[in-house]
Amino acid sequence: MNFNLKEAIEVLERTPQSLSYFLTGLSEGWLRCNEGDETWNAIEVVEHLIEGEKNNWIQRLELILSDGSNKTFPPYDRFAHLNNEINVPLEEKLQEFSILRAQNISKLKKLVTPEQHLELLGTHPVFGSVKLREVISTWVAHDLTHIAQIIRVMAKRYGTDVGPWIEYLSILKK
Amino acid sequence: MNFNLKEAIEVLERTPQSLSYFLTGLSEGWLRCNEGDETWNAIEVVEHLIEGEKNNWIQRLELILSDGSNKTFPPYDRFAHLNNEINVPLEEKLQEFSILRAQNISKLKKLVTPEQHLELLGTHPVFGSVKLREVISTWVAHDLTHIAQIIRVMAKRYGTDVGPWIEYLSILKK
Repeated sequence: MNFNLKEAIEVLERTPQSLSYFLTGLSEGWLRCNEGDETWNAIEVVEHLIEGEKNNWIQRLELILSDGSNKTFPPYDRFAHLNNEINVPLEEKLQEFSILRAQNISKLKKLVTPEQHLELLGTHPVFGSVKLREVISTWVAHDLTHIAQIIRVMAKRYGTDVGPWIEYLSILKK
Repeated sequence: MNFNLKEAIEVLERTPQSLSYFLTGLSEGWLRCNEGDETWNAIEVVEHLIEGEKNNWIQRLELILSDGSNKTFPPYDRFAHLNNEINVPLEEKLQEFSILRAQNISKLKKLVTPEQHLELLGTHPVFGSVKLREVISTWVAHDLTHIAQIIRVMAKRYGTDVGPWIEYLSILKK
């Protein structure tokens, strides 16, 4: 096991600001490109990250730590953000993500005492029994997955432009 | 073709600061993890990006734009950074990368007039004839490849920790 709460929070607290710095001011060509039908562009990924802050991670942790007997996570719609208001500028979305994330990290620190809570169990509707520390680890890995997705989508925009160098750039072939 | 110089520079100028924000202050566990023997950790990737600023991208563009008749790129050692001084703190390396990148973007803007230069040719020792715009496109895609690499390496550190969620996180299986 590599997980520890302090290191997990290091990543969680860096994601919004790193994405803000990287994405703010980019041309529409970078922000709107995707990998084809049914795939997300950078803006849609940010919206999905916001959705997770609103309706997923902290709710699951709170449920595991609650006194209730039923600890089955309610269904989570991974595509809910695709119905969002689309006219909000990206800068405002990034700002919203930053604020929600800061609030959730603050809640996380208050909720979880590592020595007591990491092995507590909840029930995932598909996976069955999962540990609190697995939820937090997944929160971190989910951030990293979606940062990598944004970067990959942007790189692939230059898949043809790099000419023969595509041989050396495996990201463009994924 | 998606390449245009202004948009390419948008990415090139964001990479150092984004990496600085993301990596500065991370625990050694995040900074030193890799994908096994002969693979790079985040610090080694930053060193590799520095090497490219010193000895690759601008030199190739200058050669293409030079008056000489031989425009064959000199060999470039992609592993040169692995012999570097290892006791320099990461913050100093990130600072060096930022300074070199800013200088090189400044040179790029002075060197290249898009209307005149994008189709000019150089000779790659393996690929043969390559266009100036392909060199710049590759510089951008190379940044994105290595940002994605850092993110992927870090994500895989939690490959076991996420428990059953590995099914949903394809980055962990790469």
